[in-house]
Amino acid sequence: MKGRVILGIDPGSGRTGYGAVRALGDEVHFMECGCISTTPKKTREERLLELHVQLSALFQRLQPEIAAVEELFFSRNVNTAIAVGEARGVILLAAAQSRVTVTSYNPMSVKEAVAGAGKAGKPEMTQAVMYTLGLTEKPRPDDAADGLALALCHLFWEGLEQ
Amino acid sequence: MKGRVILGIDPGSGRTGYGAVRALGDEVHFMECGCISTTPKKTREERLLELHVQLSALFQRLQPEIAAVEELFFSRNVNTAIAVGEARGVILLAAAQSRVTVTSYNPMSVKEAVAGAGKAGKPEMTQAVMYTLGLTEKPRPDDAADGLALALCHLFWEGLEQ
Repeated sequence: MKGRVILGIDPGSGRTGYGAVRALGDEVHFMECGCISTTPKKTREERLLELHVQLSALFQRLQPEIAAVEELFFSRNVNTAIAVGEARGVILLAAAQSRVTVTSYNPMSVKEAVAGAGKAGKPEMTQAVMYTLGLTEKPRPDDAADGLALALCHLFWEGLEQ
Repeated sequence: MKGRVILGIDPGSGRTGYGAVRALGDEVHFMECGCISTTPKKTREERLLELHVQLSALFQRLQPEIAAVEELFFSRNVNTAIAVGEARGVILLAAAQSRVTVTSYNPMSVKEAVAGAGKAGKPEMTQAVMYTLGLTEKPRPDDAADGLALALCHLFWEGLEQ
């Protein structure tokens, strides 16, 4: 099965959601989604190492053309921003090591592209992702839907047929 | 020459300063210092990849026992915090991959330990680093002194003889 694989990744300090779709002509197909979570019992560097190992395996297996990674623009808490930045650094590195092109989208662009409103809430976003991909069940876990939304966001902004 | 090698690392969005010292009994010796800088002409992920390659080589060559990495606690700008976080993530990952133990210090702890005052300025810090290590010239570039200060900070907090 040919087409372009887009992998959306939503970095978090402890949980990184991802979702992959395949674009074939003017169609989009669901491939898979999931969440890489690491235990707070480990040190920060051990958790980043685990994220790197799992992400590298994902890039290897899915061979995406694009990694669409969420970009944080606002945070009330600098510690959170730093922790998310740390995960984001490891994600960008893994992408570069696998020679996958990275595109970044802020949360508002993702909501606008997928649900048609920059202020869409979690339920609206999940509904929009399910509708677009023809899913009959909610993507699990929650963070996985965010990954799928990022992949769809990239296709909406770039245009489907290339 | 035996002893424990401590590598101090000061993450930045474009420039990462580092400095290595060797602790031998109750003595501290200067080993080397420098700065890994990447060009803004490259993409974020290419810059992180370069940082990772150079850092991994540094860990390999110096075989440090400890990597003392600065921890940002405050930033006026979330974008800066994220960018520094991205670099920090790659540094922590490289340390974990090289099985080097990581310790983190915030800027105030570093200033307190090295210059005796949490509000010490850049010139005082450079002077204190030079005095402690018996250097007759300023460490170059500037960011390298920050790396050395972090390594010394670790020794001050941990105690010299172990």
